[in-house]
Amino acid sequence: MNIICIGSGNVATHLMQALQSAGHHILEVFSRNPESAHALAALVAAKAVTDLNLISKQADLYVIAVSDDAISEVNEALQGSKGLVVHTSGTTALTVLQGHQQRGVFYPLQTFSKGREVDFKQIPIFVESDDIKVQEQLMQLALSLTTQAYLADSERRKVLHIAAVFACNFSNHLYTLAASVLNHNDLPFEVLKPLIQETAAKIQQQSPYEAQTGPAVRRDEKTMQAHLQWLKDQPHLAEIYHILSDSIKITHK
Amino acid sequence: MNIICIGSGNVATHLMQALQSAGHHILEVFSRNPESAHALAALVAAKAVTDLNLISKQADLYVIAVSDDAISEVNEALQGSKGLVVHTSGTTALTVLQGHQQRGVFYPLQTFSKGREVDFKQIPIFVESDDIKVQEQLMQLALSLTTQAYLADSERRKVLHIAAVFACNFSNHLYTLAASVLNHNDLPFEVLKPLIQETAAKIQQQSPYEAQTGPAVRRDEKTMQAHLQWLKDQPHLAEIYHILSDSIKITHK
Repeated sequence: MNIICIGSGNVATHLMQALQSAGHHILEVFSRNPESAHALAALVAAKAVTDLNLISKQADLYVIAVSDDAISEVNEALQGSKGLVVHTSGTTALTVLQGHQQRGVFYPLQTFSKGREVDFKQIPIFVESDDIKVQEQLMQLALSLTTQAYLADSERRKVLHIAAVFACNFSNHLYTLAASVLNHNDLPFEVLKPLIQETAAKIQQQSPYEAQTGPAVRRDEKTMQAHLQWLKDQPHLAEIYHILSDSIKITHK
Repeated sequence: MNIICIGSGNVATHLMQALQSAGHHILEVFSRNPESAHALAALVAAKAVTDLNLISKQADLYVIAVSDDAISEVNEALQGSKGLVVHTSGTTALTVLQGHQQRGVFYPLQTFSKGREVDFKQIPIFVESDDIKVQEQLMQLALSLTTQAYLADSERRKVLHIAAVFACNFSNHLYTLAASVLNHNDLPFEVLKPLIQETAAKIQQQSPYEAQTGPAVRRDEKTMQAHLQWLKDQPHLAEIYHILSDSIKITHK
């Protein structure tokens, strides 16, 4: 397929690289920021575009990989193009893509960072369209990247995104809080890496419910009190400690 | 060394197996629960003991791997033994081990689950003693299991434990909450596994602060509002979503 990418962030970068590797042709990369536009365009041998109104109308597929707030505006600018228009957002409904005959959603469930390669073959991709032929086309496109392609309507995609926020964004933030606890006491974050690795590896085999360890699940009140006492000068951390410990106790009755 | 293990939980089980593999001899395993005592004793070719008062006084090393609340009581029962007495707790002070000439702490920073093998070579072990010779002995013991042996006093060990609760116990609980969100909507937890794996893998290379992704860090208020709206019938999840999103915003100003 001949593809135009709108956006140059983490999702755009990884997705365009994967699509190019799978044999697709990236015609243009749009970003308001010339530097970002040129950087990604260079990576995937595309033309950099920095004016929304100059995007070509001749592509087969337009991938809108911008922040949720900006999807509507981009959609507006793509009026008149004949190709299939998709966005990559977890939480935005398909229906935001108004005015196109062929529209869909192409949502890869993964966390993407610049400078880090990911293997698309293992990434679940969820597609949606209100046109059965487009849906089939998007499934084929997903299967050109991964072995895990699924259909999911906007409601189920939102559920997936919420679950991903808990499992990924919030977990990563807890790593950040742990790192700050260590750093403030001149201890290196390095010592936690095997633990973090094992915590994620465990649930590949057993359910996270079964895998739960720590003071809260074993009702070790003495340890929890000692931790809260130690955290009393950092009310922000103490509050999170308190709420998540309580949540573990409620969940593991 | 000739070792007696008090406790038969996850830490006791993994630590005794590792010590035996490293050439140490496990004499006895104590647990009040005969089944657990016999199960671990059989694994490491030791004698099972179910009465605290019948533990032999002749071992070189006593490893107290019980819940923090029970350490004092076990310590009481070990009075009169000549060997070195250690506990494995993150948060309990060394000084709880009263009445022994040789005492110490032997704290492996890892999450242990029954039925899951872990490679001790990569596990950081933190040791402490108020006797320099005992400290040296414990460092040697730790180095017989891992390449990562460190000294840490009780205060630093507590900091390590608190950080571990955030990075491991709380992260795993977030996986559980994510699984429940998915399961209530007939979606399988399986689809999150690559994401969880990648989230943990990322921070082996970059700091978790740099690795943060998701709606909160990119100030995507529209998505956060949509998620909170969706979670409104599950106030428990909504509260956690709210607090952790705010915490991300505060941390990433």
